This record gives sequence, C-alpha cells and structure tokens, in this order.
Amino acid sequence: MAASIRFGIMGCADIARKICRAIGLAHNATVVAVSSRSADKARRFVADNGLPENTRVHGSYEDLLEDPAVDAVYVPLPTSLHVHWAIAAAGKGKHVLLEKPPALNAAELDRILEACEVNGVQIMDGTMWMHHPRTAKMRELLSDPDRFGQVKRTNSIFSFNGDSDFLKNDIRVKPDLDGLGALGDAGWYCIRSILWANDYDLPKTAIGFPNPVKNEAGVVLSCDASLHWEDGRVATFHCSFLAHLTMDLTVIGSKGTLQLNDFIVPFEEKSAHFTFASDSCFNDLVSAWTTFPKKHVVSTDLPQEALMVSEFSSLVAAIKESGAKPDSKWPTISRKTQVVLDAVKTSLDSGSKPVQIVF
Amino acid sequence: MAASIRFGIMGCADIARKICRAIGLAHNATVVAVSSRSADKARRFVADNGLPENTRVHGSYEDLLEDPAVDAVYVPLPTSLHVHWAIAAAGKGKHVLLEKPPALNAAELDRILEACEVNGVQIMDGTMWMHHPRTAKMRELLSDPDRFGQVKRTNSIFSFNGDSDFLKNDIRVKPDLDGLGALGDAGWYCIRSILWANDYDLPKTAIGFPNPVKNEAGVVLSCDASLHWEDGRVATFHCSFLAHLTMDLTVIGSKGTLQLNDFIVPFEEKSAHFTFASDSCFNDLVSAWTTFPKKHVVSTDLPQEALMVSEFSSLVAAIKESGAKPDSKWPTISRKTQVVLDAVKTSLDSGSKPVQIVF
Repeated sequence: MAASIRFGIMGCADIARKICRAIGLAHNATVVAVSSRSADKARRFVADNGLPENTRVHGSYEDLLEDPAVDAVYVPLPTSLHVHWAIAAAGKGKHVLLEKPPALNAAELDRILEACEVNGVQIMDGTMWMHHPRTAKMRELLSDPDRFGQVKRTNSIFSFNGDSDFLKNDIRVKPDLDGLGALGDAGWYCIRSILWANDYDLPKTAIGFPNPVKNEAGVVLSCDASLHWEDGRVATFHCSFLAHLTMDLTVIGSKGTLQLNDFIVPFEEKSAHFTFASDSCFNDLVSAWTTFPKKHVVSTDLPQEALMVSEFSSLVAAIKESGAKPDSKWPTISRKTQVVLDAVKTSLDSGSKPVQIVF
Repeated sequence: MAASIRFGIMGCADIARKICRAIGLAHNATVVAVSSRSADKARRFVADNGLPENTRVHGSYEDLLEDPAVDAVYVPLPTSLHVHWAIAAAGKGKHVLLEKPPALNAAELDRILEACEVNGVQIMDGTMWMHHPRTAKMRELLSDPDRFGQVKRTNSIFSFNGDSDFLKNDIRVKPDLDGLGALGDAGWYCIRSILWANDYDLPKTAIGFPNPVKNEAGVVLSCDASLHWEDGRVATFHCSFLAHLTMDLTVIGSKGTLQLNDFIVPFEEKSAHFTFASDSCFNDLVSAWTTFPKKHVVSTDLPQEALMVSEFSSLVAAIKESGAKPDSKWPTISRKTQVVLDAVKTSLDSGSKPVQIVF
C-alpha cells in the first residue's frame, strides 16, 4: 500500500472544491489542511466539503507552509499570486500542484521551476484532461504511422458564455489577478491540446488574430491565434468568454482524423468518447462515404482530476520515500505551453505580427 | 405534373456521372443529350451511365448548344473553360448549371452572370449540400435567437488526401485548367459554409495564412485563411489535398453550437445528421456537463445532388412556362463566395496581407 501524500489546500477558490473531492478520491492522497486568508473561511470550507473534523485549519498561507504535517500544496490562487506562493511553498519543501495557467509569463514560471528544482520538490500544473485514460488512448492512435500518419492540422476551441456577473466580477477578467483573461484560462487548454497533438514539438511562429475582444481594463475576453511549424503544419485556436460552451479538438493527419467535443471536461465522469477515422473515402459516385469515423469509448473509475492528483502523488511519494528526483516531464510541458502563450500574447499586443517561439 | 427540363451534359468528367444520375432521379429533369470533344467518348458515357439509346450524342460542345431539344446544360468542364462555355450557352438561350468554382475570379464570373442576365437564363453553381434538407433544418436553428443567438465563430475544414496520381494528373492541380487548386475546389465549400452560417453577411477582411503549400507549377495544394467582420465575428477555414478526408463545420453562437462532420457529402445518402447544443453548462463541480449536444437526424428521399437539379429545374420551368425572371438568389450567393475566394487568393499571394472584401 503506497503512502498517502498529505495535501494542504492553499485558498478556498471555487475550483478548490473540485480538487478537494479529487484528493479524497485518489487512493494515495489525503487533505490534511486547508488555509485561507481567514481561518473562518477555511473552517467553513472544511465543513462544506465534508472533510474530517481534525483537518488542520490555517488563517494564513504562511502558516500552511510552516505546517510539518503537509507534504504538498494545491494552489488555486489567482495567477498573479502564483509566483510568490509557489516559490514560498518550494522554499519550505512543499511539493506544488499549481492551477493553470501556472504563471503570467515564462519568466515568472522559470522562477517557480527553478525554486522547485533547487528545493527538490515536484511541480505539476492543473491541466486535468491530460490524465484521463482517454488521452492516453488517443495518443496511441495519433502515434500510429499506419492509421494516423503525420499531423497536418490541429484546431482547438474552448469558449463559454460568461454571464454579466462573471464578466464584471470573476478574477479571470481582472487585470491585477488573472491578467491573461480568456487566453490564460481557456486558451491555456487550447495551446496545451495543440502541443499534445503535435507530440510537444514546438511551433516556430505564433500569430494572434487582429482585434481580440478586450474589456475596459484591457483584459482579453475572446481571441484567436494560429501556430506555424517549419514543415508546413498549422494549428488554430479560439478561446472566449463570450460564446456558447464549446470544447473541440480536431487533429488531422495524413491518414487519419481524431475529434472530440469535450476534451477539457468530459461530458460524463465515468465514460468518455472520441471519434477516430482512418483511410476514409467516398463511394464511386462521391455521393456518400464508405467508411465512417468510429466512436471509441473509454471508461474510468476515477474522474480525471483524481487521476491527476494520483499521478502527482505518486511522483511525490517516489521523492519522499525513495529519494527519487522530481520528474521533469510535467514542468517541461508546462513551460512549453507558457512559452507559446507568451508568443501569442505578444502577437496579439503587437497588432497581429508573427512572433518567433523560443524555448 | 411539372414539365421535365431537358438537360445536355457538356463534357464527360468524372463528376458528370454523379449529376447524370441526379438528373435521372429528379422528378422534373431528364438527360436528353451528352457532348464531348469526341463523339465516341460521349457515346460511351451514354452507355456506361444507363441512359436511353435515343439520348442525343454530340462530338462538340458547339453542337450541343445548337441542339433545340436542350433546355439547360450541366457544365463540369475545368474552371478555366467556364467563362467561355457558360457565356456561349447563355448566348444560345440555354440555362446553366455550372460546376464549382464557377469561375477563376469574380471578374470572370461577372461576365458569365451578365451573359445569363442579358439572355434571361437561369444560372446556379453546383454546390450540392446547399440543397440537402439538413441544410434548411440547420438554418432554422441558427436563425433562432433563443437557442442559437448571434454567430460568434465559424470554423470549416475540407481536406482529402490526393494520391500520387491525383497530385500529378488531376485537373485540379494544373495551372491552366483549375488554377485555384485546393482553394477553388475544397476551399470553395469552406467559404460557402462560412457565408451560409453568417447568413451571407460578407466579412470585411480576409487573411490568408503564410506559406500555403503549392506544387511546382504554383497551384495551391493546401492553405488556410481567416475572415473578419467589423463586429468582431471571426471565421477560419482549412482546405487541402494533403490531409486525411475531413469535412467539418462548427458554428458557435452566443447561445448555441452547431456541428457536423460531413457537410459537403453526407456519410449516407438517405439520412444525415448534425449536432446542436444550446445553453450547455457544467455540473456544480465542473466535473461533467449537465446538458449534452443533441443529435438531429434528417432523412431525404433523394440525394442532395438530385434536389439541386430539382431546384434548378423548377426555376427553369418557371421561366420557360410562365415567363418568370431568373432567380437572383443563387447567382448572388455564387458571387459572394467568389469575391471572398478572390480576397483570400490575393492575401495568400501577397504574403498574408489583410485584404478588404468588396462586393
């Protein structure tokens, strides 16, 4: 039986409820502490989320980081606070599960990653869909040279329709809290999915589309971009707080096409599907298809967020128990995503100029 | 019982077999003549396609146009020949069902449209999917302010994987025959679908993506573009001869999302589907959706190409029998599509400069 990694939750944001449940569901993790800027709020979170009465409550993030009963922290704070608190956590030897986007830019992320490396702690960003078994199954198909071939074109969309309260008050529209707006929130997933589809081979150039929609404070509410590789591959994405909930990923190869419409949050927790078509063609008169895209269903006992916690906790356990080095795969993927996001932001801010992507 | 419109087929291209069958299936149309540059070839077409023995055979297009038994011609010739033969047909009082793209550019199309107008003949381009009852059903949903709202984002893809023979010999890769390449062939459908989704409201600007793939003769084999409206609406499309068969249309509104994966040629002839989602949202913990996109199925007795022939023939019958004026809806839609295509081409040729769309 693997040891249970003891989590402290740093801040009681809405999303923390989901991860609190996920930590409870994961077989190798436990919530042992909750912190907030107010001990009352932390206490309420403990009660509202069905945590045991002996869950430790801290009225400041500093106190949580001093708590010797805590192995790892989950950080759902606004993005602008990540650099301070992730570095502080690493400095206290706490492993860091960090909500996405992990930082406002790659320079900030590099400071976080350096602190984690220096202190030998694991870091992982909170991109949950990466951990769904569907993702592994899709990867298997994309890696098949006979059925999928080479990637040619990727398109990713994540939009949802923020209501007037969201557009006025949510931290994701506030320049001092989540200054990346829809690009940092919804766009993060799109960029990650494009990198994933292209096996993390970085594009050479990013072009933000002209005239992204911004709020009065200058925060992006809706934008688009294209990514370009030297070998001719192209990807596009659309991220928006201003359009109906849509969550599409299409990956077209030379021999196959992969598609799904719920890549970030699956329609259902226990079962997810995608379609994959290979060697599709028409009948002789081109009046119908002779082969149809096939639906693949992937079941999972645990929701993807619990699998993420579980994966993170395994890496932490290996460090804690066997003296393993922190895994570098996840922070590298985080950094690639952030670097592309930076380039898109620079292009959007420069009136759509092509921006080189440098890792 | 409506009179049957008598068709002459002008050229025995592969696609002519499909439309020949469609004319036979339409209740108000009949193939009465077939022409080719060789009478033998036309005779073989008559035999191979099960046409009656008394079908008139012409060894030149001129002869077909002189045939008084012919009301209308179907023109599947290479695009570069359209301007000559469509104008010649109109000059002889023949109605024109013209394969897409109708012309190499809007200036050529205008000459064709003018000739049709002057001679009082109907013209329609061969964009078959417009005539599927699924298209009308989807339009109904897109027009619903409560379920769909305002269009925000459209994405359209048509790619197929041309084999080495196609990429070497097909007329669509020959600069002197179909110089628009993948843009004129696959891209035509994408642009049309975007205009359709936006209720034919023309975008203000087109931006072709940098570095389209061209063959040695300079014909586009794969390209992408974005279209931009003044109110912030954006559309993207991808058209290619170099990627697996994919045929997607996604239309995102403020309140709904429409999607289909076979918009140009339905998976099956008799039954077609699409998905439509409205007011989608997540459960409380954002771990699953509470409403799923709904699948809508639309049946049809006749394949879309027969419905196209039927619609065209009705318009011709009204002119022939009741002295009606030619309908202007279809040529206007053709022209809008061609104008956008021109702007995309200009942008692609100018290294991705934004190009104003002027109708």
